[in-house]
Amino acid sequence: MRYQRPKGTADILPGTSETWQFVEATARDLFARYRFGEIRTPMFENYEVFSRTSGDTSDIVTKEMYDFKDKGDRHLSLRPEGTAGVVRAFVENKLYGPETTKPYKVYYMGPMFRYERPQSGRQREFHQIGVEAFGSDAPELDVEVIALGMNLLTKLGLKHLRLALNTLGDKASRDAYRQALIDFLEPHFDELSEDSQVRLHKNPLRVLDSKDAHDQEIVADAPSILDYLTPEAQEHFTKVKASLDALGIAYDVDATMVRGLDYYNHTIFEIMADSPALGEGYTTVLAGGRYNGLVEELGGPEMPGVGFGMGVERLVILMQAEKIALPDDNALDVYIVGIGDETSLETLKLVQAIRQAGLTADRDYLGRKPKAQFKTANRLDATYTLTIGDQELADQTANLKNMATGEQISVPLADIYQDFQKVVTDGFTAK
Amino acid sequence: MRYQRPKGTADILPGTSETWQFVEATARDLFARYRFGEIRTPMFENYEVFSRTSGDTSDIVTKEMYDFKDKGDRHLSLRPEGTAGVVRAFVENKLYGPETTKPYKVYYMGPMFRYERPQSGRQREFHQIGVEAFGSDAPELDVEVIALGMNLLTKLGLKHLRLALNTLGDKASRDAYRQALIDFLEPHFDELSEDSQVRLHKNPLRVLDSKDAHDQEIVADAPSILDYLTPEAQEHFTKVKASLDALGIAYDVDATMVRGLDYYNHTIFEIMADSPALGEGYTTVLAGGRYNGLVEELGGPEMPGVGFGMGVERLVILMQAEKIALPDDNALDVYIVGIGDETSLETLKLVQAIRQAGLTADRDYLGRKPKAQFKTANRLDATYTLTIGDQELADQTANLKNMATGEQISVPLADIYQDFQKVVTDGFTAK
Repeated sequence: MRYQRPKGTADILPGTSETWQFVEATARDLFARYRFGEIRTPMFENYEVFSRTSGDTSDIVTKEMYDFKDKGDRHLSLRPEGTAGVVRAFVENKLYGPETTKPYKVYYMGPMFRYERPQSGRQREFHQIGVEAFGSDAPELDVEVIALGMNLLTKLGLKHLRLALNTLGDKASRDAYRQALIDFLEPHFDELSEDSQVRLHKNPLRVLDSKDAHDQEIVADAPSILDYLTPEAQEHFTKVKASLDALGIAYDVDATMVRGLDYYNHTIFEIMADSPALGEGYTTVLAGGRYNGLVEELGGPEMPGVGFGMGVERLVILMQAEKIALPDDNALDVYIVGIGDETSLETLKLVQAIRQAGLTADRDYLGRKPKAQFKTANRLDATYTLTIGDQELADQTANLKNMATGEQISVPLADIYQDFQKVVTDGFTAK
Repeated sequence: MRYQRPKGTADILPGTSETWQFVEATARDLFARYRFGEIRTPMFENYEVFSRTSGDTSDIVTKEMYDFKDKGDRHLSLRPEGTAGVVRAFVENKLYGPETTKPYKVYYMGPMFRYERPQSGRQREFHQIGVEAFGSDAPELDVEVIALGMNLLTKLGLKHLRLALNTLGDKASRDAYRQALIDFLEPHFDELSEDSQVRLHKNPLRVLDSKDAHDQEIVADAPSILDYLTPEAQEHFTKVKASLDALGIAYDVDATMVRGLDYYNHTIFEIMADSPALGEGYTTVLAGGRYNGLVEELGGPEMPGVGFGMGVERLVILMQAEKIALPDDNALDVYIVGIGDETSLETLKLVQAIRQAGLTADRDYLGRKPKAQFKTANRLDATYTLTIGDQELADQTANLKNMATGEQISVPLADIYQDFQKVVTDGFTAK
């Protein structure tokens, strides 16, 4: 019986996984430089952790959760995004306490799960890399997070990045705007899509985000959040823009931008990349914002937060389209060719000794003839071959060949076991 | 409302996550040296992938699966172990074809899920790192895999390792042994535990693995698999032992050892570590074996396989108990102290410039007084502080202090923006 991977999931195979490793290693290195530490939370949480934070009317909660009952009848859900679990962990582990330096800065990377229609760059099991910083209201911290996002994508080789910026203001700003939006939309109620009708009173900002074409026509004339900001919210946004200017990071303010999750306020942003590979125009690769109030929502003290999440699948597609060169960590240093069954123990010892010396090495495990083994060494682009047959075994030597120059030398096995690096250096450079 | 992580899961926080990163980075580096590439398979598979491979009578399938129906009514299960998904991917992606070099060698790392009673080093969500090598029957490959396991644990700093070895033989050996075991156990049927009674005819080898004390007394006198090996199986096992001897890897043959999964045959092994941290005596950290037939079981061609899996939770507990020192990648190079609100934009520019130069840097985001900022710099053990106040801002300079020696120099901001590394080198070493 042959089985297929579940719909909307992918196998990441050698040949592609190196790109993922490069993305993760680059991110880890950069996050450390910004002093973000890694946090790892479970793949699943209590269902309420997500229903409470993502918003009851969000697509994530209403349509896309991988929720299930465990054998103890607990209602769990695979995590649809990274922030809620991190905040739950932040509260449960009392990381808000005086023992930790604030802002408390963490990053995560790993699989997330949403039951949606699979399409290019959008899987049911997908992967995110994200950061969260807790405990500071400073607009400069919003900008540090944005700058980190730009820095990361640039380091990964993406070009033509565009930063879209908006503010959702504080609670008073949003309440005022919410009412203005309801007042504006109500006369159009009958024209709105069914989804938007449901959301009009529950969460009118979501109507701005509607995918429905006619909804989009209606909201084109809707009032702007920027006209309803309180003086404090206005000041926060002004400082964010000034800090971005100071760092020379260009941005476009998009007053109609909202995010798919309810917990955001103040600064929200998306970093988009020009992406012929993913369809026309710019596509969002990384997005985030401020979420003051979320820590309280999950039972913690009043403590602000700001972060971003990045979709790795999309990023990898963009990187592949840009043909970004990866460091070649997998080069094969030595292929050991054994001639005759009697050499098998010695080739095993040799391959192990060379690996212990810190090099990559491989040998044949299929009892193939020397010619086939040399063919494999060529196919794997080995730097050296080390050949041993019955005669060499009797003499306790092996033949080391530089595959690029064709040079060959006979080397005592004892020298190889003692210091293979020295054998190579002395053998091929002293001429 | 305050939430807890689901029972049997853990949050891995900064302070501990560095150990996990070290384990993974060490494993990746070593696996590359042995020419294993990374494969990543989904967190869940069709239920049958596991029920078919793990064995219908295994604890994993009967009691411990996190299985659920998705919104499309598919019967899925979170993966309880790593091999079945890798084999499914190997077959589905036709990696057995002539395009890939054999043995095809891959590794995986990530979460696995079993609904069992949580205890120290045993979680419901736990993590494994494992390798699989497909396409060669050679006993030397079994030994390469074992040597890789030993090499890995040694590199991670574990001491007092013990390798336990056994063979389950080929199908003919097992059939003969199975019958001998049934003949031996049947007279004791009434004394056996309920679990063992169920398994006696379905899978008598499992009775050897029973945790029940009275079962263990009974099986102490059971016949040994080693007396039922076919000549071919005997030869394979003899070569495995000879290869281990050649590499100087010590082992104990434990003829009563079986594995919790049905798919093993020929060589099976466990690497145990002396572990006061996990209770008395030796505890298994890494285990594996040969599983010829598993690729066919999942719809592929006849193609042998061998691999191991390692539990990361246990490993980390052992490493912590051994107080293994980690590389300190998170050292803080520069803490920037800003005095007065007016300096906030400049400190943001400075912190970003220093990070761009490849160093770790941080600043205050809480509007704290200089004294508190210096305290933080001390607490974070910063190598340098860089201080800027209104006067320095007017002069376009900053004060760079070597925290170990107390030396201070005034540096033009322009120099810092141009080449911070040079500022440090010229400023503190030219005396």
